[in-house]
Amino acid sequence: MIKKVKNDDTVVLVDSNYKKYIIDTNGKTDKYKGVGVIDPSFFVGKTYGKQMEIGNKQFWILQPSLMDKLQGLKRKAQIILPRDAAQTIMNCSIETGHKVLEAGIGSGSLTIALATTIAPDGKVFSYDKREDFIEHAMKNLNMAKLDKYVKTKVKDVTAGIDEKDLDAIVLDIPNPWDAVKHVYNALKPGGYLCTYSPLSTQVEKTVEEIKKHSFIEVKTMENIQREIVVSENGMRPSFDMLGHTGYLTFARKVI
Amino acid sequence: MIKKVKNDDTVVLVDSNYKKYIIDTNGKTDKYKGVGVIDPSFFVGKTYGKQMEIGNKQFWILQPSLMDKLQGLKRKAQIILPRDAAQTIMNCSIETGHKVLEAGIGSGSLTIALATTIAPDGKVFSYDKREDFIEHAMKNLNMAKLDKYVKTKVKDVTAGIDEKDLDAIVLDIPNPWDAVKHVYNALKPGGYLCTYSPLSTQVEKTVEEIKKHSFIEVKTMENIQREIVVSENGMRPSFDMLGHTGYLTFARKVI
Amino acid sequence: MIKKVKNDDTVVLVDSNYKKYIIDTNGKTDKYKGVGVIDPSFFVGKTYGKQMEIGNKQFWILQPSLMDKLQGLKRKAQIILPRDAAQTIMNCSIETGHKVLEAGIGSGSLTIALATTIAPDGKVFSYDKREDFIEHAMKNLNMAKLDKYVKTKVKDVTAGIDEKDLDAIVLDIPNPWDAVKHVYNALKPGGYLCTYSPLSTQVEKTVEEIKKHSFIEVKTMENIQREIVVSENGMRPSFDMLGHTGYLTFARKVI
Amino acid sequence: MIKKVKNDDTVVLVDSNYKKYIIDTNGKTDKYKGVGVIDPSFFVGKTYGKQMEIGNKQFWILQPSLMDKLQGLKRKAQIILPRDAAQTIMNCSIETGHKVLEAGIGSGSLTIALATTIAPDGKVFSYDKREDFIEHAMKNLNMAKLDKYVKTKVKDVTAGIDEKDLDAIVLDIPNPWDAVKHVYNALKPGGYLCTYSPLSTQVEKTVEEIKKHSFIEVKTMENIQREIVVSENGMRPSFDMLGHTGYLTFARKVI
Repeated sequence: MIKKVKNDDTVVLVDSNYKKYIIDTNGKTDKYKGVGVIDPSFFVGKTYGKQMEIGNKQFWILQPSLMDKLQGLKRKAQIILPRDAAQTIMNCSIETGHKVLEAGIGSGSLTIALATTIAPDGKVFSYDKREDFIEHAMKNLNMAKLDKYVKTKVKDVTAGIDEKDLDAIVLDIPNPWDAVKHVYNALKPGGYLCTYSPLSTQVEKTVEEIKKHSFIEVKTMENIQREIVVSENGMRPSFDMLGHTGYLTFARKVI
Repeated sequence: MIKKVKNDDTVVLVDSNYKKYIIDTNGKTDKYKGVGVIDPSFFVGKTYGKQMEIGNKQFWILQPSLMDKLQGLKRKAQIILPRDAAQTIMNCSIETGHKVLEAGIGSGSLTIALATTIAPDGKVFSYDKREDFIEHAMKNLNMAKLDKYVKTKVKDVTAGIDEKDLDAIVLDIPNPWDAVKHVYNALKPGGYLCTYSPLSTQVEKTVEEIKKHSFIEVKTMENIQREIVVSENGMRPSFDMLGHTGYLTFARKVI
Repeated sequence: MIKKVKNDDTVVLVDSNYKKYIIDTNGKTDKYKGVGVIDPSFFVGKTYGKQMEIGNKQFWILQPSLMDKLQGLKRKAQIILPRDAAQTIMNCSIETGHKVLEAGIGSGSLTIALATTIAPDGKVFSYDKREDFIEHAMKNLNMAKLDKYVKTKVKDVTAGIDEKDLDAIVLDIPNPWDAVKHVYNALKPGGYLCTYSPLSTQVEKTVEEIKKHSFIEVKTMENIQREIVVSENGMRPSFDMLGHTGYLTFARKVI
Repeated sequence: MIKKVKNDDTVVLVDSNYKKYIIDTNGKTDKYKGVGVIDPSFFVGKTYGKQMEIGNKQFWILQPSLMDKLQGLKRKAQIILPRDAAQTIMNCSIETGHKVLEAGIGSGSLTIALATTIAPDGKVFSYDKREDFIEHAMKNLNMAKLDKYVKTKVKDVTAGIDEKDLDAIVLDIPNPWDAVKHVYNALKPGGYLCTYSPLSTQVEKTVEEIKKHSFIEVKTMENIQREIVVSENGMRPSFDMLGHTGYLTFARKVI
């Protein structure tokens, strides 16, 4: 079925290197980085899935998928990569309708994945100590049309959590152990904690603190993703590889 | 907030080794494997999150989470593990409301993950050549209360796909290359194909076939998960490890 | 060139599962585990490389290689695997003629690899607190005909090192940090320290102590070996895998 | 024991980034890349292990170890890394006195490791089709003072092997399968074949050919080395990582 870009649509342009540019067709005529000067209303009426030329470059025009939103976001802080977001969501059993808290918001990358998962009836509560991070992240959420699922708060999560009966809490802060007792109180019975930490000592201190509360199914894992290069001559793992992102620690509240 | 088991609830019992038993409180008095002879209506009125003794064993009683449903299912065929299901869902950008096809259904493990993700308004179409697999899998889906999101078909996906404009198609069959042209026709523009194959030659033949059609963002990856053992003496990767599950190949349709 | 088993030879029998049995042809008639009751002089005059029947089993008869000696040794303590021994020898630049110290001796596995490497003019000094380990290990060294390259000492290496100007020192003890200052004094300038530790905290304490002395090229690594299953249908990493052995830390003395 | 640089010594200079420069004290005054213009006889009488200033840079002066020779060689072709050389030597059970063949010679990296291992009484036979590679590699061997252990031949190993009763043969060529029958004939009973190949299809074809001859203990492996970053804040795997080098396939000749 042929589908065309409508008024109010946000589109993603994908160039031949699969670099992605998310553009709101209601946006104003401007210089769009990597694309050039365009009037975004130009895209209205174009056919989704087709390649077109803009300036001297070829772009496919597509409806933005979750991966497009994650790969097309503007970074300010370090982000949690899609591979780790995927494991976080799965191992915390996050699903449509859930109420989830994350701290901090960073560039909003995990926020986008969480908001997509809990939509349309759930809610993401997002704490960050820095208002500039929240503002930057919410621009990304807004471009992804997911801002309505997110409630932000300029707050240090180690100082307390206002919400109750949460389905899951994800901590991407340097000292997750300082928030564990608040997490315990804010989770519903059966709810999940996830912490993301690059260093061994962070994991050790966090697990030590987790063990002081009634958590079960405490586990730590590292996710490694190997890209495989496939050609007519055979296949092999890529020579380049991201060696480490962070350790993910999970725990589940019981009474 | 204290929450109690209500009539019609399905609960999960978690034993001290974190083995899980999903039980429908409407079920009949019977011998439940790993639990013993019980009348499931016994659980109505109990408090979620608390541990209780049944027979001589201790069980936590919880609302079944996605992970509980995946870990508690009864296996007939090999399953796609949660780690690979998570990457599949993320890299195919599957979300609430999507229409997704999978083949084959196996024991219904990936089906449970997909149904949870597309609920409440999406649909999973699940093909399998073997009716006994479909029947077995649907018992698992039924226990997980996700059967209403799934439409099954006794059919070989390499013989054709009836649905159109699908958001994603996931192939866990020995010869995914034979289904690629049908996949191309059944996907919406921008929709994703994912194939799961343990062997190098399967990946090579699949990618070769994918390249004959208008797919972009073709990539193959292997996900490795290392369990980390954390104790008061420090931490280390687990000595035991699952060395390989399968290669995941992704591609995205354009016109 | 056909080569036959001579008097005084030690041979290795390799069964159809590649399990290995090292046997001294001068040994007495006895029950040999996995082989049966045999008079070892029976093998004299047989052709190396050929398969023969003993009892109801088939065995290849070969001259024992380093790998045969490592795989055929009798274990009492945990051993350092060939994969880690190989990296230790390479990254410590151990070669023929070198004087090397190890502590503890364990079952003599690393000792066999070291003795093979420094032969014929070098020396391995091997400390262990437990005389029973030394005795057991030297039986393995003796069977491998490498005992003449090894000098053992019932001694705690953290109490001091008697030798001087060593080319390399390898520590496989629970508290390598306690031996670092003795190691520094016992190494020649340019000589290497290697420590083998399973846990993060062991590595951290060891590196902290190493940094208090004049060592350069301090590095820690983990070696992961994936077995690849190759068949006419293609190849894939093995489903079974050893997830972790230990971290190897290296450092090099300067003045 | 203080040891000083003597006449005819070759030294290694190690800068503060641990970059290495191998210099023959008999060499002529020249511009040495990364060091500057020096008269190498300047180093005679200096103390091994000490740091000294040359130009404005600090260098440690050391006796070249095997790792120095490998890290200090000049590259022309792709090299087999020390990690893979170590596994090759271990799994082929190569030791002092052995006769070993390699093809091709590349930049002489593996040749240096093999020559160090078989010294002083063994021999490395090294085939390469390209005379310029042999010339370049032998300059590296000469600088490492290992050239006397190596005999080179401008020859395609798939056309035949002149030597007999070899202890091991290592193939780093694009089509190792074409040399397998020659390898079988050239090995002693119990001798080892090793092939190094980056691609799946190379491994598959090689193993297929190996299975046509009387080889046992056929195995393929991939070695992955993770660098661990250790600081006072804890440790973690390095973010940067080499994702793949090559697959190593081993086999052992029987009659």
